[in-house]
Amino acid sequence: MPAAPTRGYTASKEQLLKRLRRVEGQVRGVQRMVEEDRYCIDVLTQISAAQAALDKVALGLLDEHARHCIAQAEGEERLTKSDELMDAVGRLLRHG
Amino acid sequence: MPAAPTRGYTASKEQLLKRLRRVEGQVRGVQRMVEEDRYCIDVLTQISAAQAALDKVALGLLDEHARHCIAQAEGEERLTKSDELMDAVGRLLRHG
Amino acid sequence: MPAAPTRGYTASKEQLLKRLRRVEGQVRGVQRMVEEDRYCIDVLTQISAAQAALDKVALGLLDEHARHCIAQAEGEERLTKSDELMDAVGRLLRHG
Amino acid sequence: MPAAPTRGYTASKEQLLKRLRRVEGQVRGVQRMVEEDRYCIDVLTQISAAQAALDKVALGLLDEHARHCIAQAEGEERLTKSDELMDAVGRLLRHG
Repeated sequence: MPAAPTRGYTASKEQLLKRLRRVEGQVRGVQRMVEEDRYCIDVLTQISAAQAALDKVALGLLDEHARHCIAQAEGEERLTKSDELMDAVGRLLRHG
Repeated sequence: MPAAPTRGYTASKEQLLKRLRRVEGQVRGVQRMVEEDRYCIDVLTQISAAQAALDKVALGLLDEHARHCIAQAEGEERLTKSDELMDAVGRLLRHG
Repeated sequence: MPAAPTRGYTASKEQLLKRLRRVEGQVRGVQRMVEEDRYCIDVLTQISAAQAALDKVALGLLDEHARHCIAQAEGEERLTKSDELMDAVGRLLRHG
Repeated sequence: MPAAPTRGYTASKEQLLKRLRRVEGQVRGVQRMVEEDRYCIDVLTQISAAQAALDKVALGLLDEHARHCIAQAEGEERLTKSDELMDAVGRLLRHG
């Protein structure tokens, strides 16, 4: 079996997965609130919390990516990777 | 057992839960991508998709809330509820 | 000349215009920074400040609109106005 | 007089200033709409347009900055500059 490629986030993978599991728990919490007919505004507050947590994961990934993948690229490739990164930032700013 | 209160979103509860389960699936998809050391930019694209889906859920809830809870409130209460709604919009704009 | 219509924001018009003139000043500040070849990150910080100020203006308008226009509408019209408001929130969340 | 430093955006400075002058015009347009007591929702649509234009300016700056300043930095400095860039992205995501 070939080894998994090393990504910018490999070093922080466990922390990343922990955060993502917490986001999953938050989204399930929102489902439970809807099932229990909880007050709309409280449901929205919980959704904002999940969004903030996802933002944090995304920023962490961007940061690792910039530090590793771009920093280690050379010449032309670095420009391509930089554009690719900024496209990802654009998608995050506008949410897809 | 007392009946669950009727919320603005009660009519669309099933659709709401379906969407939230899809968001949960997307977040689990992000976890899997991280576990498999997938390329950072692809992980970020998937996060943006989950954010966009959460935005849609939030806007749906806001809409139902405005249509029902605010529309049916009277006098002073309507102002309080309107302020409460706008605070929720502010939290969404800034993500918590 | 017919009187100007009264809007939800009429009472706070002066404060609104003051804030908008400050945003205008911030945008001109960004131009000056670019003309003087200031450091990119500092320019970006100033842009974030202008965005935050515009968000505040938008939330203020939304709040006044919800309090006045929607609260005073009756029946069908209230639903139409509520939908219209949420469309505006959606555009703000995604910036156009 | 010392020469102005060359920035990542120096090559696209004229285009950047043109865009910023358009944003300034949009913000002045919003002021005029408020002065003329135009309908709140129309004012909000114009604010969203100004926000979208500012986002585009910011993304352009980020892109130039990543392509030039980070790409040309070496070793430690590249990490510092990458972190600085991601802090700026974080401020944009949350608007200050």
